[in-house]
Amino acid sequence: MRVIGIDPGSRFTGYGILEGPGGTPRHLDNGVLVLPPSLPMAERLARLSAGLTALVEEHRPEAAAMETVFTHRNVKSALVLAQARGAALAVFGRFGVPVFEYAPAAIKTAVTGYGRAEKEQIQKMMRILLKLPEDAASDASDALAAACCHLRTVRLSALTVTGRA
Amino acid sequence: MRVIGIDPGSRFTGYGILEGPGGTPRHLDNGVLVLPPSLPMAERLARLSAGLTALVEEHRPEAAAMETVFTHRNVKSALVLAQARGAALAVFGRFGVPVFEYAPAAIKTAVTGYGRAEKEQIQKMMRILLKLPEDAASDASDALAAACCHLRTVRLSALTVTGRA
Repeated sequence: MRVIGIDPGSRFTGYGILEGPGGTPRHLDNGVLVLPPSLPMAERLARLSAGLTALVEEHRPEAAAMETVFTHRNVKSALVLAQARGAALAVFGRFGVPVFEYAPAAIKTAVTGYGRAEKEQIQKMMRILLKLPEDAASDASDALAAACCHLRTVRLSALTVTGRA
Repeated sequence: MRVIGIDPGSRFTGYGILEGPGGTPRHLDNGVLVLPPSLPMAERLARLSAGLTALVEEHRPEAAAMETVFTHRNVKSALVLAQARGAALAVFGRFGVPVFEYAPAAIKTAVTGYGRAEKEQIQKMMRILLKLPEDAASDASDALAAACCHLRTVRLSALTVTGRA
């Protein structure tokens, strides 16, 4: 199974593409779409949309994974983030890529075993797990972690179902 | 000047297309994109995106107008709304259509003279002003009102500049 993880933002949108199974995911790509703050929001979201479209067309993921929206920090920034998510969701919807959302703590637990891990710990863990030559950018690491979380969740579900059968 | 007003939502997205000048706008089109709640959010936003794309390609508006996001009611629904806005903004950005945002009270004042007008009053006023054969749907009326507000704002700015010259 091929999964694209994203960490959407109106300034930087991280992405990471992995291929399962969940135990030993294979790293295919990661990076950050940079959306210049000098541009109007609509143009930034158009670039986000175009960038994700190109990635989906190239890699043909079977699922997308991202964090659920969180509102406990700052409502205004959560709204800007939700706009970026909306632009991204529309791309996945257009290509029929099902989207799976995970709570931030669930993603952190899946990849580090600790629900309150720091961003740097996520970066290090992704580098080790995926045998990357160097740390991926912070937003790209978060996106890889979301993809990783999804692959592990799918694998656990499959194991559970097999166990029950 | 041709303007598309939208009232984005994850269930219904109203649109209205007007041609200026602001004093006597000409009505070109209005309607509602219906996004079935039975579909996953990503597919609904993809339909919103496709619907707006078709409208922009058909009418080639020179500006888009919509309400600013409001957060004072319910944060959760504001986030869902922001996602719909993001999908819409990405379409306008892709076609280089500049987006203008107005506070809900500014739109109401522009079209009814009263900042706390009810939805029904907006509908009636749009019907009279634009000489519609019947009331437009509520979401479409709100979209027409946003377009109308933009045309009037542009006209006032032009008058002011002329006055100063």
